[in-house]
Amino acid sequence: MLIEPKVLKGFRDFLPPAEITRRNLTEKIEASFRSFGFVPIDTPALEYAEILLGKGGGETEKQIYRFKDNGDRDVALRFDLTVPFARFVALHQGELAFPFKRYHIAKVWRGENTQRGRYREFTQCDFDIIGSDSPAADFEILLMIRATLLGLGTDVRIHLNHRGLFNRFLAHLGISEKSADVLRTVDKLAKVGADETGKSLACLAGDSNARKILDFINAKGSFEETLDRITELSGVCEESSRLALLRRFMLDMGSGDVFVLDPSITRGLDYYTGVVFETFLTELPDIGSICSGGRYDNLAGLYSKAKISGVGSSIGLDRMIAALESLGKLPAAATYAGTAIACLKEEQSGLYQALASRFREAGIPCEVFLEAADDGKLVRQFVLAEKKGIRWLVIPGENPLQDVLTLRDIGARQNREGLSPGEALNWIATHTGADSK
Amino acid sequence: MLIEPKVLKGFRDFLPPAEITRRNLTEKIEASFRSFGFVPIDTPALEYAEILLGKGGGETEKQIYRFKDNGDRDVALRFDLTVPFARFVALHQGELAFPFKRYHIAKVWRGENTQRGRYREFTQCDFDIIGSDSPAADFEILLMIRATLLGLGTDVRIHLNHRGLFNRFLAHLGISEKSADVLRTVDKLAKVGADETGKSLACLAGDSNARKILDFINAKGSFEETLDRITELSGVCEESSRLALLRRFMLDMGSGDVFVLDPSITRGLDYYTGVVFETFLTELPDIGSICSGGRYDNLAGLYSKAKISGVGSSIGLDRMIAALESLGKLPAAATYAGTAIACLKEEQSGLYQALASRFREAGIPCEVFLEAADDGKLVRQFVLAEKKGIRWLVIPGENPLQDVLTLRDIGARQNREGLSPGEALNWIATHTGADSK
Repeated sequence: MLIEPKVLKGFRDFLPPAEITRRNLTEKIEASFRSFGFVPIDTPALEYAEILLGKGGGETEKQIYRFKDNGDRDVALRFDLTVPFARFVALHQGELAFPFKRYHIAKVWRGENTQRGRYREFTQCDFDIIGSDSPAADFEILLMIRATLLGLGTDVRIHLNHRGLFNRFLAHLGISEKSADVLRTVDKLAKVGADETGKSLACLAGDSNARKILDFINAKGSFEETLDRITELSGVCEESSRLALLRRFMLDMGSGDVFVLDPSITRGLDYYTGVVFETFLTELPDIGSICSGGRYDNLAGLYSKAKISGVGSSIGLDRMIAALESLGKLPAAATYAGTAIACLKEEQSGLYQALASRFREAGIPCEVFLEAADDGKLVRQFVLAEKKGIRWLVIPGENPLQDVLTLRDIGARQNREGLSPGEALNWIATHTGADSK
Repeated sequence: MLIEPKVLKGFRDFLPPAEITRRNLTEKIEASFRSFGFVPIDTPALEYAEILLGKGGGETEKQIYRFKDNGDRDVALRFDLTVPFARFVALHQGELAFPFKRYHIAKVWRGENTQRGRYREFTQCDFDIIGSDSPAADFEILLMIRATLLGLGTDVRIHLNHRGLFNRFLAHLGISEKSADVLRTVDKLAKVGADETGKSLACLAGDSNARKILDFINAKGSFEETLDRITELSGVCEESSRLALLRRFMLDMGSGDVFVLDPSITRGLDYYTGVVFETFLTELPDIGSICSGGRYDNLAGLYSKAKISGVGSSIGLDRMIAALESLGKLPAAATYAGTAIACLKEEQSGLYQALASRFREAGIPCEVFLEAADDGKLVRQFVLAEKKGIRWLVIPGENPLQDVLTLRDIGARQNREGLSPGEALNWIATHTGADSK
């Protein structure tokens, strides 16, 4: 009786081409994070449920993978990287150098309803600066988003706002106590449209206030014009000064065009207290924000008396992959090795490996084919090379290390004959682009 | 009421220095795998328990993290990468190009007793060639172990044996039916010693057979001498011919010294049917095998009628790290960025980032410090740079992008003054080793 080989709904196998794509992407993302001096951490996939759930929360509790382990401990799989980071900081604050700039690229698990193409296992790429209130930290996160996504071949517009400024405006209207509800309602503007949002706001705060709020969040114009307009509505304050300083940083850096001051950005999550932002691809804005985040003033409050503020963000890898795919910016690769040695006689495998190691030592990844056809013909190896995404097939001579060889360009179906191993190596090195690394 | 920030027993946080070490190591391992044309896959952390447990197994069942998910499915965390690979191959065999060479570096979970310093969450680095019976595949796996560990700065001796040859020998003795027990007993030789092993074998197979088995597994000498001796004891057969061919590959490759024919190697696991091997560091053999494996003839039999043979191995990352550490071969690094820009005036942060981006664009990772001291003194930034493992601190001029700057060597406590940004960049590039990438 065979067991049916299947994966759980919402979970995925990654075959080599998809996995190579994901790795190429995360390696580029990591290289960018590292170039800014961010350092990696890792935390357990499994934690005490009490730690992950904190005060407990309706939606989270329903989605989390939670169970009793063999020691009867109440444990759960992490559902994001923020809560484990808060616990990590509370536990290790004495060992960290502040401001602490960390990234964490890892899988998380949520038992969500998978109807809308959501996954139950997916990768998050989080990056945060903690232990600094400086606007320079806000700016660095914004800049890093831009640099990282530019490194993936996509330009972005980053829409930002200041939660505190919005709250001051609501205080002016005398509806501070409804702040959380208003923020959540405004957060859905892009999804449900202005009419619907207006109606919801009217129910929450009355017709007149609803109009004023819509007026505030719809302030359109240059960064400077919008800042003037919302400062007028909320009053000059430290929040508006911070936005002005951030604007100066942007201009000093020569990247003013990248940033849009957008008062309709609120981010639904309650823990943000400062700048909040969302990132849109200029060529594909409709896919929604592919990198959001903001400033918070008490990261680890559930686990520590120390009040640790910070600013951070997260790239949604799956959405990013989907976007790059639909933009045709996801180079497909089925292998890292663009070169292979053909197998003419299986008993020569030691010599083929010796030949291949010359290529490898020169920085050219090189596979060795393991089996020769009984009839001595190479056609099956041509087909295999093509299937594997190999471009150069080295066909060795009688004595593989001494004799000249033939180099076949699999795609072009062309042979170059009479090359020494060194000549073949040089030819491959000069005729191969990014696919040989 | 604060929640105590703690991790589950057997689980670990990785702070940046430890995580950077792990990443440097896995990146080198991956680069080696890729250079041989191996391609990565990934599978879910969570699978149907039925699939992971297969026919069910005593030890595994006790160690596995198994639970009911929100949809009442019987699920479990993977406890190794072999079983998910078997399931993967059964499910996707039509999509793969055979022989298929894959690697998989990922975490696995076992609720083991943690008394002996074992972890409940750890990383495995598996690599296999499936769909080929060729001795060339056996040889490639052996060679890749050597090349990969050499790339980590350690030389190895790989001890190998052929299960089939051992079984033929047992058949000669007329005790084939005790093969599994004998193999398991012999597998413990290094742990319990020859005396103890002799006694256990005598109980299993009688005094005379025990002596003959000890004689067989103790055949010492060169590869060729040992092969002659055990061929004599078991008879000439395809297994001895395969070992002779493997020996030829080793000599053709010029790596004869690396390999030891060791009839005491049996590997306890039942599913191996051909060559089996263990890998020892020449400088630290007592730590035990850091990379073991072998050939199997039916990988996916639980899930598919297709009989898929292969050969594979696995590097134990934690043991490897411990070994390199005790050999002093684990370069410590607390950051990827060897350079930072000091902060003199926070309102100049945009200009500091512009300066840093020149370094980053030249391939020099560069952090920007975010906060200036109130008294204008830099001593706290010197301390921070040292704590972060930064070597070069760039102290910008009044106008950071135009004026000359001072470059401080943090370790040497020396300043070089009056450098243009370009001069500083060149100085860093030429005076930094592997830590700037």
